[in-house]
Amino acid sequence: MTNADLRAATHDLLAEYAGLLDAENYQSWLDLFADNCVYKIVSRENDEQGLPAALMLCETKKALTDRIVALLKVVHYSPHHSHRLLSNIRILGRAGDIVNVEATYALYHTNVEGRSQLFGVGLYRDRLLVEDKGLRFLEKIVVIDSFSITAFLAKPI
Amino acid sequence: MTNADLRAATHDLLAEYAGLLDAENYQSWLDLFADNCVYKIVSRENDEQGLPAALMLCETKKALTDRIVALLKVVHYSPHHSHRLLSNIRILGRAGDIVNVEATYALYHTNVEGRSQLFGVGLYRDRLLVEDKGLRFLEKIVVIDSFSITAFLAKPI
Amino acid sequence: MTNADLRAATHDLLAEYAGLLDAENYQSWLDLFADNCVYKIVSRENDEQGLPAALMLCETKKALTDRIVALLKVVHYSPHHSHRLLSNIRILGRAGDIVNVEATYALYHTNVEGRSQLFGVGLYRDRLLVEDKGLRFLEKIVVIDSFSITAFLAKPI
Repeated sequence: MTNADLRAATHDLLAEYAGLLDAENYQSWLDLFADNCVYKIVSRENDEQGLPAALMLCETKKALTDRIVALLKVVHYSPHHSHRLLSNIRILGRAGDIVNVEATYALYHTNVEGRSQLFGVGLYRDRLLVEDKGLRFLEKIVVIDSFSITAFLAKPI
Repeated sequence: MTNADLRAATHDLLAEYAGLLDAENYQSWLDLFADNCVYKIVSRENDEQGLPAALMLCETKKALTDRIVALLKVVHYSPHHSHRLLSNIRILGRAGDIVNVEATYALYHTNVEGRSQLFGVGLYRDRLLVEDKGLRFLEKIVVIDSFSITAFLAKPI
Repeated sequence: MTNADLRAATHDLLAEYAGLLDAENYQSWLDLFADNCVYKIVSRENDEQGLPAALMLCETKKALTDRIVALLKVVHYSPHHSHRLLSNIRILGRAGDIVNVEATYALYHTNVEGRSQLFGVGLYRDRLLVEDKGLRFLEKIVVIDSFSITAFLAKPI
């Protein structure tokens, strides 16, 4: 994969990630993750101090899948739609079939009355796996600045 | 047009669209649309249920032009500037000279006192026409999550 | 530098700019500027009317560096983290080793209690210098719509 191809594939993967979550198409969203993936949401404070506590932690794809299944079955509290904007996608480096990427996100929620508001901003710190058929997430760490609203943190960011 | 060229041209067209609207350069903005274009704003609710009612509907370029002329002549209520951010641009497919594209937007308004706020978020669902001189919008459907503020919906999004 | 390379390098430079400011890595951020750079923040009102008054003006890299040093030494008022999203990056033209670029930004602040809010939106109007080792900012003009919050304008945008 050339640098230009890697760049395009990285942007496409992140756009897919956001588009599928926004569309609440969780099954296709799960397909973007490698089999031995890690998904983690952590506050900026804890991340900067190296503290291990996470706001959400799925250490296998099975755990992530279970999380989504639970989400679909039980979460009917505070219904809303979401939209996320990504920016500043940076390919930090590549070693073998692993690519380190960072990006900034802003997440908006819209309630059933059509009112939208900022839910939070933060950083995606991703490790991508280069496979024959393209890229998938091997590790996705979401470092959130906006930790005061974690009461609502049922869904992936 | 190669895939890489199409990708670059698509991103450029969407950036132009946003930049020209933000600069309130409506004449150049209209030039981005094909002669037989459709411009439509619809709520996510109606879109998901296949309901036909639109918040704004211009079924020809002439209708869209008239809309803009009316806007420039009569809208002096609630003056503001706007800025929009686009993200997650996805080329869904190409058939002949038609390209299907989706993107996420967030729109901000700033009033005359310099206060900015989120006006709304949503999805652009575009059909682009590949022409000799580049791309133009054949159809632009804006699916808005934020329908509670449609009292202000005088301008294109 | 081909058009495709220039495009990629421009996007990378802007992503670096945002990422380094968000990470509060000011030393590396300064390295993105050419030696004879200008950094200026101006309100949209003043910019549109050609009025010279700026909200921040550093006419040399030394002045910009001094500004950052002062920032790091004395600003402990209203501590917060920031995240910025960039969009609609447009390469307007190239003349010799100078490239004119515009982009839209939205800037978010998060306070120590983890509450995030929109700080402001506006336009980057940049002149980039093409050098052997890549691109650097020769001039960065930030045209802000959101001028009602300039009491907090201690940091670069």
